[in-house]
Amino acid sequence: MTTMTTAPIENPLRAGMRLQRTPDACAVVVFGATGDLTARKLMPALYNLARERSLPGGFSIVGYARRDWSDEQFRAAMKEGVTKYSREPIDESLWESFARELHYVPGNFDDAEAYTRLADRLGKQDAAHGAGGNRLFYLATPPTAYAPIAEHLGAAGLARPADGWARLVVEKPFGRDLASARALDQELGTVFRERQIYRIDHYLGKETVQNIMVFRFSNGIFEPIWNRRYVDNVQVSVAETVGVEGRGGYYEESGALRDMVQNHLMQVLALVAMEPVASFQGDAVRDEKAKVFHAIRPIDDITRDTVRAQYRAGAIFGKDVPGYREEEGVAPDSNTDTYAAMKLEIENWRWSGVPFYLRVGKRLPKRATEVAITFNRAPLQLFRQMGGDNPTPNLLVLRIQPDEGISLRFGAKVPGTRSDVRPVNMDFRYGNSFGVDPPEAYERLLLDAMLGDSTLFTRWDGVEAAWELLTPVIDSWAGGDSPMQFYDAGSWGPEAAKHLIERDGREWHRM
Amino acid sequence: MTTMTTAPIENPLRAGMRLQRTPDACAVVVFGATGDLTARKLMPALYNLARERSLPGGFSIVGYARRDWSDEQFRAAMKEGVTKYSREPIDESLWESFARELHYVPGNFDDAEAYTRLADRLGKQDAAHGAGGNRLFYLATPPTAYAPIAEHLGAAGLARPADGWARLVVEKPFGRDLASARALDQELGTVFRERQIYRIDHYLGKETVQNIMVFRFSNGIFEPIWNRRYVDNVQVSVAETVGVEGRGGYYEESGALRDMVQNHLMQVLALVAMEPVASFQGDAVRDEKAKVFHAIRPIDDITRDTVRAQYRAGAIFGKDVPGYREEEGVAPDSNTDTYAAMKLEIENWRWSGVPFYLRVGKRLPKRATEVAITFNRAPLQLFRQMGGDNPTPNLLVLRIQPDEGISLRFGAKVPGTRSDVRPVNMDFRYGNSFGVDPPEAYERLLLDAMLGDSTLFTRWDGVEAAWELLTPVIDSWAGGDSPMQFYDAGSWGPEAAKHLIERDGREWHRM
Repeated sequence: MTTMTTAPIENPLRAGMRLQRTPDACAVVVFGATGDLTARKLMPALYNLARERSLPGGFSIVGYARRDWSDEQFRAAMKEGVTKYSREPIDESLWESFARELHYVPGNFDDAEAYTRLADRLGKQDAAHGAGGNRLFYLATPPTAYAPIAEHLGAAGLARPADGWARLVVEKPFGRDLASARALDQELGTVFRERQIYRIDHYLGKETVQNIMVFRFSNGIFEPIWNRRYVDNVQVSVAETVGVEGRGGYYEESGALRDMVQNHLMQVLALVAMEPVASFQGDAVRDEKAKVFHAIRPIDDITRDTVRAQYRAGAIFGKDVPGYREEEGVAPDSNTDTYAAMKLEIENWRWSGVPFYLRVGKRLPKRATEVAITFNRAPLQLFRQMGGDNPTPNLLVLRIQPDEGISLRFGAKVPGTRSDVRPVNMDFRYGNSFGVDPPEAYERLLLDAMLGDSTLFTRWDGVEAAWELLTPVIDSWAGGDSPMQFYDAGSWGPEAAKHLIERDGREWHRM
Repeated sequence: MTTMTTAPIENPLRAGMRLQRTPDACAVVVFGATGDLTARKLMPALYNLARERSLPGGFSIVGYARRDWSDEQFRAAMKEGVTKYSREPIDESLWESFARELHYVPGNFDDAEAYTRLADRLGKQDAAHGAGGNRLFYLATPPTAYAPIAEHLGAAGLARPADGWARLVVEKPFGRDLASARALDQELGTVFRERQIYRIDHYLGKETVQNIMVFRFSNGIFEPIWNRRYVDNVQVSVAETVGVEGRGGYYEESGALRDMVQNHLMQVLALVAMEPVASFQGDAVRDEKAKVFHAIRPIDDITRDTVRAQYRAGAIFGKDVPGYREEEGVAPDSNTDTYAAMKLEIENWRWSGVPFYLRVGKRLPKRATEVAITFNRAPLQLFRQMGGDNPTPNLLVLRIQPDEGISLRFGAKVPGTRSDVRPVNMDFRYGNSFGVDPPEAYERLLLDAMLGDSTLFTRWDGVEAAWELLTPVIDSWAGGDSPMQFYDAGSWGPEAAKHLIERDGREWHRM
């Protein structure tokens, strides 16, 4: 694969700034290579890394799955996936050179012999490439396969190579409550060390999520007001318009809390709330995130401070859609949450007394992920005297997706011979400011894993702390303590979620 | 003039917000009524106030000037002015009713008998309108006429009426140095009290200048960083593309420092730098501005900290233009400044150590008035480690004119698999956000003067302090201590102005 050299990108904007980050020669082994995630996300991401010349010489991919495919069949299937899902159109000659290093090993996840074949194949590739035995094992499989695969990799001598490195990339979910997460951690831990394990949370690979850190720490003016003295409340909201999209059977086992809150929302919350880091090296960021997780007060009144809900039939964009319980694969008396909201408090010097409200839901009227930080009002006296209304508080909105950007609401004088104040917005849009097509989250994350940079992956202590916080909620909900609420598809969620925040004299940010 | 009632504007946006501000019945007496300012600014402003129903019942205007005009001639001339200069097209029926209350009294400024005629005329109008003897005397005359007019108004019993109020509106310049300003203050003071005197600085009537206060004090997030801990420097810049526009004779007596710095730039500086007020009533704002003026350190090295310059021939927008000394009415060896720059320091707890740079010039490449606040950089270490450049400091730009608005520069992540940071802008534009045509500065100021609200007028202590600061500069320049610099018309000013700021490791904000 000689076209993928280690030469830096020839981009004059970046000239002289820094050398390209390029990983060591390595093989990426994808378990579950015939599955949806591989075709939709992993292969397009790897192809685009090749296109951007971010892959090393001596790079190869090995697909591993049950189906009895040949290398050629695998290549054809992957080409189809890349053609369909790549953010950039496929280039035939680049694909040719990329596909030469695509290989396939058929095998069950619990077939010891197949792992021996895999080890042989990898050894041969190393010899051919002069690569140093570096392997990235990517588990694009159902979670039940994680532990068996790890065990077999260990048994085949692939987990702790004498030369080179071995890393294990694990998809979500990492457990489905505290006990199962701890069990999984134990099982992986018998084979891989924590520093070899890369737990994916693809939200952390999103440009706008990474920009939360850049925004906070590359600007002198926000950090001074990023604390309890100036912030009234923080809201992290993820609204989806879709329902379960035919995956009702999967979703029945998950629900909004497990599927979104425990991972994505908690990670975003931590990036917003953490102390500044002095470095992006090593564990600096993950140490600070862990401190946030550990400072979150356990929810002591789950019925009061959390809301679970399910969508009923309704309409989205004028089109009738069924209720959750009518979806295929969903039990007619299901108690799975398609909406979750909660209030959290972080008991540290920066945030004590500032509520963090989280909400996530399917079948809401709009697709949007946003962080909304509402600041304290200016002193009122001045504006009362002018006879006007109270000034609207400043609001900073970090739009994660779509319409990626940042806006700041502030009060400005309404033109006229009086002194009326009205809120207006300063706005920044990624699309307008950067003429480049942002990479997909998986590109960044795969590249980082190859580079051994685990900053954007979740660490066990963070995962554990999130489960510690949320498992009592799961248990309480399962025990029926918090009644299931219902909302019409196409509405902004149940009344109970409004009460959750309005009780505090606040309201949900309008997305 | 029955169409101009005190009824509030029927604007649904403002419904229920507050009663319309409407002055008492009064007469506006314009001295210099046949002059340019009256036709261009005052009469269009009064007409638009009538159009917006901001004028009281019993309102009338009396023009006073040397020319032997009749009421009808005056009305015709004013109609011409309004037609030409009003921001809204003239409405015939509204003009009819407006013009009925336009009167004219011919007279020299030093003709005692003419003032008696004026007093008679005003008395008759009061009787006709049932108005209470309230008069606003507007001096739209050369400054040399201010003292004589005041004296004659006093002698005619018009300055301190038994019934109603008398106010004197004085145009700039108020003196041409400290001594002459003090003399003028003394002369006016023998007739009018300070609280009767309304010194116009039309910059204070601009929407965007008023918004400096609204922006600072109706938002919770800027005040905490509006001080020496977070601000690196403040720049107030006024760039004009025009030259002296045929008024070379006038400008020879003035220059950039007297014409712009002593009034407009100092006033804008004070609004940016002053402590928050708890009220817009009475003297609150002017008290705070005075504190700023008194905290500015006298410039101890005028040669080092000020720059004076004159434009040479050059080109503006590709068109050749003559140098200042070649303009009509300008001496071929003139030493009048068409450009001035200086560095000031405010020695108080908020601003000590933060330089305020002022610059103003004619024949620059662009017309723009801006306040640029550069904040301190974020700590560098984080970005050094990433191998990137130092982060660009945050910059807040208040655009006074044209393209009125506010923008905030901040660092954002460049999309890509690395962590490059590039400065981008959040932007707010008045024009996009408010669908209304902003009033002219003179509308607001005339209305405020009629209402007795002197907040947006300059008070003697502020004017005196500005002259105290700048008179040594004027004297030093006149004495030849600071050599005259030259710049090409169409350039951004002389090299010496660059050195003034680059010496401090800073640079002029690019407008």
